[in-house]
Amino acid sequence: MNLKVIAFDADDTLFVNETYFLETEEKFCELMSDYLSHDEIAQELFRIEIYNLKIYGYGIKAYILSMIEAAMTISNKTIPIEVVDKIIQYGKELLDKPIVLLDGVEETLESLHGKYKLVVATKGDLLDQRRKLHNSGLGRYFHHIEVMSDKKEQDYLDLIKRLEIQPSEFFMVGNSLKSDVLPVLAIGGHAAHVPFHTTWAHENIDYEVEHENFSSLEKITEVIPLL
Amino acid sequence: MNLKVIAFDADDTLFVNETYFLETEEKFCELMSDYLSHDEIAQELFRIEIYNLKIYGYGIKAYILSMIEAAMTISNKTIPIEVVDKIIQYGKELLDKPIVLLDGVEETLESLHGKYKLVVATKGDLLDQRRKLHNSGLGRYFHHIEVMSDKKEQDYLDLIKRLEIQPSEFFMVGNSLKSDVLPVLAIGGHAAHVPFHTTWAHENIDYEVEHENFSSLEKITEVIPLL
Repeated sequence: MNLKVIAFDADDTLFVNETYFLETEEKFCELMSDYLSHDEIAQELFRIEIYNLKIYGYGIKAYILSMIEAAMTISNKTIPIEVVDKIIQYGKELLDKPIVLLDGVEETLESLHGKYKLVVATKGDLLDQRRKLHNSGLGRYFHHIEVMSDKKEQDYLDLIKRLEIQPSEFFMVGNSLKSDVLPVLAIGGHAAHVPFHTTWAHENIDYEVEHENFSSLEKITEVIPLL
Repeated sequence: MNLKVIAFDADDTLFVNETYFLETEEKFCELMSDYLSHDEIAQELFRIEIYNLKIYGYGIKAYILSMIEAAMTISNKTIPIEVVDKIIQYGKELLDKPIVLLDGVEETLESLHGKYKLVVATKGDLLDQRRKLHNSGLGRYFHHIEVMSDKKEQDYLDLIKRLEIQPSEFFMVGNSLKSDVLPVLAIGGHAAHVPFHTTWAHENIDYEVEHENFSSLEKITEVIPLL
């Protein structure tokens, strides 16, 4: 491999994220528990999130707006305004969660730093991701953050063009097979999958990946001997 | 000048934007007119927008969330939930406004394209800016979009680093002296100001800029003979 850029997904690859979203979802279901069952509420929120993806994109602000919209739909516009206030408060708390680095992240970055150009490739809000990188102390390892409006093949082709490299010089590390692995392999790049214990339903795929440019890892530190 | 990258601000430099925000603000003031005067409503919305900048950043999603929060503050949480529904609808309409190119933009880009690396440097939402560039047909002129979490000196230093150029090789074109001109001059870059007929209060500065790397233009096409 003649690699130039190693890109890391941020949420649930470098630091805890989905756990916080699930906590917030729990609080939202609790808030709406007079109207529907827990599962029905979670399902309706998910439906609205997916519907809004093409309008709002990814990230916490989109999630807050979708929770507000779901609260109105679920209650048939009968919720008191205080519920909206609560949802905004939950959203702001989500934007202010402590940064918890995942095991082996610092060791991995320390080892690769200086040998390759390291970038963060994320679908989240730029401001939120910058805050997390800064507060985590990981900022010094990365050349820059690439915010992607989605992680499909075309988005990776755009990224490769922006980085002025060939697909074969690109290596992506992430926790989502659907977003971090499959599209990268499809355009001729390399990818390693490091699973997180919980994955957002939208990112789930249910088959095995086999490809010469693909590695399935258990821990992020296994990237080091691979490169 | 030995320039490598010409960066263009997007909103109100390439296409109409502030006009649409003002239209939405009018509708918001109308919606809240039972509670306060037009000016008081606009002032409170502005206060909340600025307060939320450090949490939400820039862009339409942040604006929608600030309108909802302002509606609750202004009404002392007495507004009916339908108002929140309306605000979200206004926000989605704002995200779906037609793209109106400003005079001379296409001519300018056509002329510079191929001679320099052209990028869009914007504080807005990535997805929203991508949509606008794509729908405007301007996408083909630009190497890529740079989404900046803010446009202060450090943000431009980060941008320069990401582009792997020197500040003196960077030329910024935009409608905001505060965001597109002053920080760029301060880090040793070049900048041209092309005013739009209306400027968001947060972007206003009230003094004249004089600097050897600065040009005050009336139309964007005047960039062409300058370079």
